[in-house]
Amino acid sequence: MRIEDISSFVPPVRTLMGPGPSDVHPRISLALARPTIGHLDPAFVGMMDEIKVMLQYAFQTKNELTIPVSAPGSAGMEACFVNLVEPGDKVIVCQNGVFGGRMKENVERIGGIAVMVEDMWGHVVDPNKLEEALKANPDAKIVAFVHAETSTGAQSDAKTLCEIARQHDCLTIVDAVTSVGGTPVKVDEWGIDAIYSGTQKCLSCTPGLSPVSFSERAIEKIKSRKTSVQSWFLDLNLVMGYWGGNAKRAYHHTAPINPLYGLHEALLILKEEGIENAWARHQRNHLALRAGLEAMGLSFIVLEEHRLPQLNAVTIPDGVDEAEVRSRLLQDYDLEIGAGLGSLAGKVWRIGLMGYASNMKNVMYCLGALDAILTDMNAAINQGAALDAVKTA
Amino acid sequence: MRIEDISSFVPPVRTLMGPGPSDVHPRISLALARPTIGHLDPAFVGMMDEIKVMLQYAFQTKNELTIPVSAPGSAGMEACFVNLVEPGDKVIVCQNGVFGGRMKENVERIGGIAVMVEDMWGHVVDPNKLEEALKANPDAKIVAFVHAETSTGAQSDAKTLCEIARQHDCLTIVDAVTSVGGTPVKVDEWGIDAIYSGTQKCLSCTPGLSPVSFSERAIEKIKSRKTSVQSWFLDLNLVMGYWGGNAKRAYHHTAPINPLYGLHEALLILKEEGIENAWARHQRNHLALRAGLEAMGLSFIVLEEHRLPQLNAVTIPDGVDEAEVRSRLLQDYDLEIGAGLGSLAGKVWRIGLMGYASNMKNVMYCLGALDAILTDMNAAINQGAALDAVKTA
Repeated sequence: MRIEDISSFVPPVRTLMGPGPSDVHPRISLALARPTIGHLDPAFVGMMDEIKVMLQYAFQTKNELTIPVSAPGSAGMEACFVNLVEPGDKVIVCQNGVFGGRMKENVERIGGIAVMVEDMWGHVVDPNKLEEALKANPDAKIVAFVHAETSTGAQSDAKTLCEIARQHDCLTIVDAVTSVGGTPVKVDEWGIDAIYSGTQKCLSCTPGLSPVSFSERAIEKIKSRKTSVQSWFLDLNLVMGYWGGNAKRAYHHTAPINPLYGLHEALLILKEEGIENAWARHQRNHLALRAGLEAMGLSFIVLEEHRLPQLNAVTIPDGVDEAEVRSRLLQDYDLEIGAGLGSLAGKVWRIGLMGYASNMKNVMYCLGALDAILTDMNAAINQGAALDAVKTA
Repeated sequence: MRIEDISSFVPPVRTLMGPGPSDVHPRISLALARPTIGHLDPAFVGMMDEIKVMLQYAFQTKNELTIPVSAPGSAGMEACFVNLVEPGDKVIVCQNGVFGGRMKENVERIGGIAVMVEDMWGHVVDPNKLEEALKANPDAKIVAFVHAETSTGAQSDAKTLCEIARQHDCLTIVDAVTSVGGTPVKVDEWGIDAIYSGTQKCLSCTPGLSPVSFSERAIEKIKSRKTSVQSWFLDLNLVMGYWGGNAKRAYHHTAPINPLYGLHEALLILKEEGIENAWARHQRNHLALRAGLEAMGLSFIVLEEHRLPQLNAVTIPDGVDEAEVRSRLLQDYDLEIGAGLGSLAGKVWRIGLMGYASNMKNVMYCLGALDAILTDMNAAINQGAALDAVKTA
């Protein structure tokens, strides 16, 4: 590529029904373009306070330390782990998909000890297994699990898992990247100690920020650490000087100003709709999509009672080249759906109905496009089979 | 604050002449609002390749590993340190301002040994002191220094410092957050091994991304590490799977799509102007600002030959409340200039002329506004002095 040949990038207009990013609400796109101001500007500091209040609403919490980390969800995950886990700490990590494995990576890179509680991919985290692991490891200090597994579409019972952790005097770290805004996440009612999410899923926003929230118990643990947090960028003791309650904000790092405009607008849209209404909308559109997919003969890999309405993982019909289907959806319909991840690569599609993208127009468009392509490909496959039958006859 | 009272955030229109963020080019603001697409979309992957080519131009390098970290400059700094430093490694850290101190923090949080080479704030890094430190520490593996100290406006001789480091078989980590795009930064010619910058300074872009570049020697070191990189999010072994040269990109984290549109446009603007022309423009406007500031009786804290044209640190006139001046500039003129940082807090103003903000309109506006306020305040001070004289008479 020659630099001389590069010109402004004009992206295609896609319909985003993968595992995120999802369709961005037009009000949010426009908010991104607003004039940049300084990260210590009083006007900006006022907006930061509003973001905190609206994030508390999104997380259903009164936690003071409820802020967006200035980087994508993976950094929000890392912020939770590096602040709460110290070298030598034992952490029970429940894994039922890709993202539980990433939690293990985080614990081990801190020098913590990860005790794995494994469930099959597509299943939920089994509370009984967690209970057993905690009995077998009375020195465990933290329980970490994924509320909404983006790799499978399974939703675990966060309330019960947190109760069990609390009975064993453990703090909890919960991955809610895909759930916040799409299905109920109740930080205070469920007693979650540390939680992280992303902006590019059910909040209808662009990727790049990671909302997090920490309970008083978690903050006590952070403040009483014996070792320093291994990441300077993610050290909440420092970040709080900037995002904290004081009118005087201490510079830590330069906040991503315009993406935060986008998050502010996204949270405002959530507030205007009402979070219960947003949850109901995700469920309603999921049921419509489900009806269509099942009519096409596609089956879900997660049991009905554990399905995330915003992330629909379905098996690939026999004989269908799944990558070709996705490629044709993108090329012919400007429609993105997700591939399988990890051990489910090549085995499932992941169809997202997240945030603004969870609407009836997308449901109908996706079903129509998928049906057209599968019908076309099935015809080709059948023709091939017919030809083969002729040849061998 | 009641959530019911929150509405869309409409930021004031400021002129940004602090230490960054600086004024964003309107083309970049508009680029941010373009339709979001997926982080594995072929169209997006093509744009990533263009960003790499243009970042190579901005850094004046052929380094293959030249990419934007998906988080602000502080994370770019951390990416350099956590990938290149292993526990027990000795790192010579040159400090002549705030940001050298932050390098020390990074080394120590990795479990490395930081040997400090200190120069007075406002001075440049003394090559002789570095040479002495390297002779006294033959086991040192890395030399880290700040090319452009954003806290003081001093520009160190990166070429000479890198030469000395190489003679002692050390890798170099260089902070170029404020220099890239504003003054010459020549990664290949100077033999820099790892360098990080920010988007919100002389690239005229919004904050939130950190361009980095690594030499072949640095990559060898990363690949031959004995320990794993302590940050999963910043582990370049993983990040390269996504930003690497293969057409097939492995998902690592969800890239911040729209901010990358902005960076693409920012780099395109730099290419269109020509980087040498951009450097010359920064110098020209600096000289104009300097003439005006000196005419007002303000003096620079950095010797002329070491001054960064894009970051002008000047002393506060006697008897002037520096915070009040900044506050009046912001309130009455919508003009932001920077306060002193660290040991220079309350002692200097930092006036930025960075990227798109480095233009004659800003120079004249800043001089005019500052002159008006200082004239007004001096009058008040003189009146007060006169009154005092009357009282004590």
